[in-house]
Amino acid sequence: MHTSPQNATIIGAGLVGSLLGLYLAKKGNKVAIYERRPDMRKASIAAGRSINLALSDRGWRALEGIGIGEDIRKVAIPMYKRVMHDTKGNLTSQPYGKEGQAIYSVSRGGLNMALMDLAETNPDISLHFNQQVTNLDLKTNTLEFHNPETSQDTRLQSERIFGADGAFSAVRLALQKTERFQYSQSYLEYGYKELTIAPGENGTWQLEKNALHIWPRGQYMMIALPNLDGSFTCTLFFPYEGQHSFSALKTEADVMKFFQEVFPDAVPLMPTLLEDYFGNPTGTLVTVKCFPWSFEDKVLLIGDAAHAVVPFYGQGMNAGFEDCSVLNELMEAHENDWETIFKTFEKVRKPNADAIADLAVENFIEMRDKVADPRFLLQKKIEAKINARYPEQWIPLYTMVTFTPDMPYAKALKNGRKQEKIMKKLMQLIETEADFEKPEVQQMLERKMTEKFSLNHETNV
Amino acid sequence: MHTSPQNATIIGAGLVGSLLGLYLAKKGNKVAIYERRPDMRKASIAAGRSINLALSDRGWRALEGIGIGEDIRKVAIPMYKRVMHDTKGNLTSQPYGKEGQAIYSVSRGGLNMALMDLAETNPDISLHFNQQVTNLDLKTNTLEFHNPETSQDTRLQSERIFGADGAFSAVRLALQKTERFQYSQSYLEYGYKELTIAPGENGTWQLEKNALHIWPRGQYMMIALPNLDGSFTCTLFFPYEGQHSFSALKTEADVMKFFQEVFPDAVPLMPTLLEDYFGNPTGTLVTVKCFPWSFEDKVLLIGDAAHAVVPFYGQGMNAGFEDCSVLNELMEAHENDWETIFKTFEKVRKPNADAIADLAVENFIEMRDKVADPRFLLQKKIEAKINARYPEQWIPLYTMVTFTPDMPYAKALKNGRKQEKIMKKLMQLIETEADFEKPEVQQMLERKMTEKFSLNHETNV
Repeated sequence: MHTSPQNATIIGAGLVGSLLGLYLAKKGNKVAIYERRPDMRKASIAAGRSINLALSDRGWRALEGIGIGEDIRKVAIPMYKRVMHDTKGNLTSQPYGKEGQAIYSVSRGGLNMALMDLAETNPDISLHFNQQVTNLDLKTNTLEFHNPETSQDTRLQSERIFGADGAFSAVRLALQKTERFQYSQSYLEYGYKELTIAPGENGTWQLEKNALHIWPRGQYMMIALPNLDGSFTCTLFFPYEGQHSFSALKTEADVMKFFQEVFPDAVPLMPTLLEDYFGNPTGTLVTVKCFPWSFEDKVLLIGDAAHAVVPFYGQGMNAGFEDCSVLNELMEAHENDWETIFKTFEKVRKPNADAIADLAVENFIEMRDKVADPRFLLQKKIEAKINARYPEQWIPLYTMVTFTPDMPYAKALKNGRKQEKIMKKLMQLIETEADFEKPEVQQMLERKMTEKFSLNHETNV
Repeated sequence: MHTSPQNATIIGAGLVGSLLGLYLAKKGNKVAIYERRPDMRKASIAAGRSINLALSDRGWRALEGIGIGEDIRKVAIPMYKRVMHDTKGNLTSQPYGKEGQAIYSVSRGGLNMALMDLAETNPDISLHFNQQVTNLDLKTNTLEFHNPETSQDTRLQSERIFGADGAFSAVRLALQKTERFQYSQSYLEYGYKELTIAPGENGTWQLEKNALHIWPRGQYMMIALPNLDGSFTCTLFFPYEGQHSFSALKTEADVMKFFQEVFPDAVPLMPTLLEDYFGNPTGTLVTVKCFPWSFEDKVLLIGDAAHAVVPFYGQGMNAGFEDCSVLNELMEAHENDWETIFKTFEKVRKPNADAIADLAVENFIEMRDKVADPRFLLQKKIEAKINARYPEQWIPLYTMVTFTPDMPYAKALKNGRKQEKIMKKLMQLIETEADFEKPEVQQMLERKMTEKFSLNHETNV
């Protein structure tokens, strides 16, 4: 067991890589971060991809761990509810949690730059840009880099390498060549396109500011998250092929006609619709699962490099940030015994990463389809009532995932499945919100709660 | 639509690559086959891996399509049944099918060399050895090869490339870099080790020759297939870790003690046990699924490169050979319209490849565990009786997969699942073979068969 501070190399200066650097330095490590792209604070990075993100409690917890929570909160916009837009422009809404609970729209770039700035002023962290990993030799833990700006190739041997280099991780490629590496990359048959709702006069918001907006259309949907300047970033999640799909919308006229038909209330707010639609790239939606995440005490994958998920639960960044919190706890518990830290980390996090990956895929169906169904919204209202009655034992799945950072994703998923079964039974007896008080509903609920408890031998939290 | 013969490059001169070459040449194509390894007919290839294989009806059909069935049958050993060995050396057995139905033990090397010999004498086929693919550029369909013997690197541009280069396909690597490529590699936590039961005096067989022998031991097993020289090739399927595992058996004494305890009747027949155990490599057991299998009209994956499966249904080679039969039919139907041939091929074959992959993983549990259970053997006997009663409508799953080459794997799987449900109900009423004739069993069976039919609107064959 070593006790002296170690040298750590992080590949990727994205959200997770930058935050991880701060945590490692805090524990006394000397950290070097290598980023494939130019410094986003100086160069302008290709736009059109995930301009804003929803930060929730797991993410906040990790930011607070390095004392940056308050600063970020100042530039984050709370979203207390979903607002659904139907094809006539009628609105319905559904709160995300209890009074005051919100997820927060933050600028990906803004948050990343804030973390980079913090890292740069830390004497134990160095940042290196334009460094593409071209090879990693696991035998000697030697990295090879190519700098596309200077055409220089360099090598670096490192005691410890953290792959925080995203869904298409170069570090993971080296692990993929080891024996018996479990790996899957699974793409949805949907892509996404980022579009813009313009700010109103004097930087005001043309839709309700403190909400996440959804235009659910069954097989596809558009969503919008607020930005500080009054604009909203919209994302269209759309099939690649089929009647309504990217491949079906070929001309500007096709796009205008389609949007006017299915998103009529949004079109007047989107003056750059055609420019955005044809100018922005179409993003893919991939789930990556792999195992192991570590190689001896030398290499660890973290964030999207270990577990890329689709964005429909708003948990990709939050899960990556939670990785940093968990790793920090393990560093405290196991003081530079890196093999134990890495093995425990992957063992603890893998089931949780799998759970949020599966939940994220399932939530796409909820967002694009179910939220438009009055029965579904009624069920959510009934569930809120049950939660009020049994605040400790029954917590809605969304709340467990989003607002209960001390509950592992895997446990949230398991509890959620159990509750969903009970909800199905209850809803057979329920037509209106008032029906919740009917004696047979109450009796069934009581019985089910007793069963749930006796099976569980534990509370949900 | 083209009508002139095309130039085809096949990567891999293994079983599927060699057979595919013969089929492509038969359709008038000029074929060049490039193989990574030296010519196995001249060099001695690393031993210890899949020395023999079980050939069944799908494989025979493909061999007969190029007129080589009869020749191979002469050097194949029919295995009519499974013979189970318990820890006391007691034997039970279970026929694979009806009277006369068998799977055939063939030498992998022998079959491969026979196919290579046929290819070599074909004026439209050239064979090239020691040619490792180091790159495939899909834009220009250019292959780069490295020859480890001569250290020469060469390039080749080809109209059409077939990746028949196995589970770790280099051709597939190029497809993996295309957008939205679905890919998974999934390893069992088991490895395998090939061992030998020696021939008896004068080349006789020390165990029953015409059978596949199994030593089912719950969490692990050994199997043995007969060879022409009187020996059997045994394969131990064994966990990597745990109480009984590769990692637990460290010394020669460990191995001897373990084998004497759990395979006592086999040990005296295995004079080279320790030599084999410590000398032969431990093989991994991987399932590879991917999609698409083709790139435009230029590249097609086939066999293990498209769908590697674990060996427990004895269908890996058979599925690869069936690929050749199906491709041949499509070449006949679509006359050099390669884009249609490739797209149809992958569309038709993918669900069947997925089905046999899943069946193969499930069958491991049957082989290592269930075949030692008298209830399971009774169920198989009852099922044979049902099959005799309803020969058209009820065919045991194993028979559909193994002896019914005109039934797609996916359909066999679907039918099998349905039948398994019915068997479960029936077996609740059955304690002995004679119970099959009980009126309540007969009534339930009749009712279930009617339901099965009315749901199906089709027979099973």
